[in-house]
Amino acid sequence: MSYIGGHLVGDPEFEVFGIGTIDNITSGNLVFLFHQQKISGSISSIPEVIVCKEGMDIRAKNLIFVENPRLAFIKLLPKFYSQDYPEPGIHPTAFIHPQAKIGERVSIGSGACIETDVVIADDTIIFPQVYIGKGSRIGKSCLIYPQTVVRENCILGDRVILQSGVIIGGDGFGYEKYGDVYLKVPHVGKVILEDDVEIGANSTVDRATLGETRIGTGTKIDNLVMIAHNVKIGKNCIIVAQSGIAGSSSLGDDVIMAGQCGVVDHGKIGNRVRLAARSGVVNSIPDDQMVSGFPAQDHKTEMKEKVLLRKLPDLWQRIKNLEKKVFKS
Amino acid sequence: MSYIGGHLVGDPEFEVFGIGTIDNITSGNLVFLFHQQKISGSISSIPEVIVCKEGMDIRAKNLIFVENPRLAFIKLLPKFYSQDYPEPGIHPTAFIHPQAKIGERVSIGSGACIETDVVIADDTIIFPQVYIGKGSRIGKSCLIYPQTVVRENCILGDRVILQSGVIIGGDGFGYEKYGDVYLKVPHVGKVILEDDVEIGANSTVDRATLGETRIGTGTKIDNLVMIAHNVKIGKNCIIVAQSGIAGSSSLGDDVIMAGQCGVVDHGKIGNRVRLAARSGVVNSIPDDQMVSGFPAQDHKTEMKEKVLLRKLPDLWQRIKNLEKKVFKS
Amino acid sequence: MSYIGGHLVGDPEFEVFGIGTIDNITSGNLVFLFHQQKISGSISSIPEVIVCKEGMDIRAKNLIFVENPRLAFIKLLPKFYSQDYPEPGIHPTAFIHPQAKIGERVSIGSGACIETDVVIADDTIIFPQVYIGKGSRIGKSCLIYPQTVVRENCILGDRVILQSGVIIGGDGFGYEKYGDVYLKVPHVGKVILEDDVEIGANSTVDRATLGETRIGTGTKIDNLVMIAHNVKIGKNCIIVAQSGIAGSSSLGDDVIMAGQCGVVDHGKIGNRVRLAARSGVVNSIPDDQMVSGFPAQDHKTEMKEKVLLRKLPDLWQRIKNLEKKVFKS
Repeated sequence: MSYIGGHLVGDPEFEVFGIGTIDNITSGNLVFLFHQQKISGSISSIPEVIVCKEGMDIRAKNLIFVENPRLAFIKLLPKFYSQDYPEPGIHPTAFIHPQAKIGERVSIGSGACIETDVVIADDTIIFPQVYIGKGSRIGKSCLIYPQTVVRENCILGDRVILQSGVIIGGDGFGYEKYGDVYLKVPHVGKVILEDDVEIGANSTVDRATLGETRIGTGTKIDNLVMIAHNVKIGKNCIIVAQSGIAGSSSLGDDVIMAGQCGVVDHGKIGNRVRLAARSGVVNSIPDDQMVSGFPAQDHKTEMKEKVLLRKLPDLWQRIKNLEKKVFKS
Repeated sequence: MSYIGGHLVGDPEFEVFGIGTIDNITSGNLVFLFHQQKISGSISSIPEVIVCKEGMDIRAKNLIFVENPRLAFIKLLPKFYSQDYPEPGIHPTAFIHPQAKIGERVSIGSGACIETDVVIADDTIIFPQVYIGKGSRIGKSCLIYPQTVVRENCILGDRVILQSGVIIGGDGFGYEKYGDVYLKVPHVGKVILEDDVEIGANSTVDRATLGETRIGTGTKIDNLVMIAHNVKIGKNCIIVAQSGIAGSSSLGDDVIMAGQCGVVDHGKIGNRVRLAARSGVVNSIPDDQMVSGFPAQDHKTEMKEKVLLRKLPDLWQRIKNLEKKVFKS
Repeated sequence: MSYIGGHLVGDPEFEVFGIGTIDNITSGNLVFLFHQQKISGSISSIPEVIVCKEGMDIRAKNLIFVENPRLAFIKLLPKFYSQDYPEPGIHPTAFIHPQAKIGERVSIGSGACIETDVVIADDTIIFPQVYIGKGSRIGKSCLIYPQTVVRENCILGDRVILQSGVIIGGDGFGYEKYGDVYLKVPHVGKVILEDDVEIGANSTVDRATLGETRIGTGTKIDNLVMIAHNVKIGKNCIIVAQSGIAGSSSLGDDVIMAGQCGVVDHGKIGNRVRLAARSGVVNSIPDDQMVSGFPAQDHKTEMKEKVLLRKLPDLWQRIKNLEKKVFKS
């Protein structure tokens, strides 16, 4: 109770042994309810403690009402499930270049490769089989999961999390046709991930041609996302799985991009823009818009269009009726 | 003959030196025909042995008729092309935690990292540079190809195949906004891959928040597929490349999902549902439906809509003709 | 000047210390202008040297006019930004099978694994943590970035570049249902990447069932692209991020495929075909077509359809007006 606040209705002496959600109720568990609509009749028959939003109408032996059940869940979870991380220290099978600078209490796992002139700040955990290219700098308290790559001269802020398989700083995709062949545009820029950025498994963030590809503080990126060279992403954006952002595009702050979206190269997306799943942006979107479709447009307009699309058979019939009346009478 | 059954029309004394398909005919090869329509005139002129479906009308020197040519192909292929796997044994450059339990005849390749409390059952092959996180259990006769990651506390059944670059058990994508920042929802659940699951290169299966992300017996997943946290997939499903299934969704048994599909979070897809390529499911699909489009709907309805879409210019012209007649006469 | 040609308007004595684009102007930098439309008023006030296309109307202290500014940029960039690569030599933590044949001046990085019967030609750089499977052959002057996989019996030509996370030669996705279960079709074919192919981060190219998956000379593939088994791609194609090409399809030469496209299995795409972003090809496309949409059709036809789609509300209103007049008067 002291961890999550709220007030109790029921027996103050109950004991809980675990924590769960409505999908996996076990006897003795504290059950979190995030949405009113998810409650089925069977719950009240199980002697559980339910944590839910103030004002929800639930029957249960014991109830804890809190302001934000998801927040309470986040706070309480680590009390029941310890996520124990590797101890500080460098594994004997890791390769650390003698010119690399490793901070205090850093952990570097088996088979990791840390190249020359790398700087790793205090309390960061580098899991096994990670590659950090020369001259790259990793901030404090980062979590770099197994089998990620940070190529040369990239910069990660503090508390950055890279899930496994992430590739930071691969070459951008740029060529110029010269006669019959494509010449490769060298990519000598960098990638900068600001503080508290998290990037999901097997996503890729390409380095800039010149200058930088930058992802702003607090932005969270899901799995299998493609961020191309010279892209600028603002603070606290959410980019869901399998989306792609083409070269030199920019996103403002607090953008929310649902799954499988695409943004054309040199596109400009304003602050607080929301993109529904599978939106395909082909130009620029001003601040505070909600868009969907391909090419992406105002979400309400797109929804009306979708409704009319489903009425096309009816529409055809009505035209035929009109023609019958007009041309044949 | 004894391997594939069927009956021969032609010379029982012929010798074959290899095996091929209609696309790569070489003299002396046994040529498999999977579809009648693929046969061109030139084949009969080449002195090959053709294996085809009972009842096909083919001219060739020698013919073997079988019930299912693809099945015969699968059975015969290993006789001509040996796929030799690494020998049992642990490579000296691999790191095996002393608390890990390794079964009989297991092979562990160069640079692999097996953390504490891992259990690997008999006859499994762990290729080089694989990572198995602490407490994870790998069943019998699995093939874990180079550079795959199985994070902590995940469970793989028997005969599971992970192609290279697969990430099992990355954190799910969950955050709760608290003031201006996103707090990370800890993901302390697991991933369970049941027996005979295969997962394609660079696909990702995220661990559950609590409880499990589960993929049922015999389900096959192609490359670059995203399976989010807490997803449940039934038995013997086929999920083709670049599809994505969002958090807490469920699929029944025998679902076939073609390439580049998407399923919204908390979506429910019934048994034996078929999704055409690029379907985008935004709610639930009952058993035995064939769907397509975005938002996905009954496939026949979608096809009609597509046909009418292509007729839009005609439709506009007809409306203009009507208007001319009705309003201007 | 001698590197890029062109002619100067301004002071022949100026000195430059770096190179930049219009997006990152720094004092003392040579600024490249690729498009007339990108110039804003503020540039002429900064004392820069501008390199631009012959005939552009720019005000600046010093101007160098060249035929192709992007080409000049490619040529000049290495003069200012050295991309220094690893020195030749084999890192002591790499595992090289004694039967592997390593050419002159080859570099093999930390933790790399080179299996038996591999052949690596002269001047190739294998970065750390790379896996090359048995019997594979790597040409001259290749760049194989960290954490890539080349499975067994594949062939890479000269000057091939694999970005990190690329998987070459994973098993194709093929199964045959036998009773209730799917039997795996063995994939004993190979992948052939011809000279000067480049493949982007975390892309996958599956090996053929029999025969080969082949990517032609000079073809460039972006990140997170899926090339399925037995696909044939011609010369000098450009395939942008997150596109997927299904099994046994073929592309001609000089095809340009924009981002997030898809091609159905056994599809045939002719020479010089261009696919707009998100095109979904469901059959064959003849030479020299520009297509878009799903199913992909002639680009101009698709554009007209999109315009009419946006007029659907107007169309409905006009039908209602007609009905009012025709049926109610």
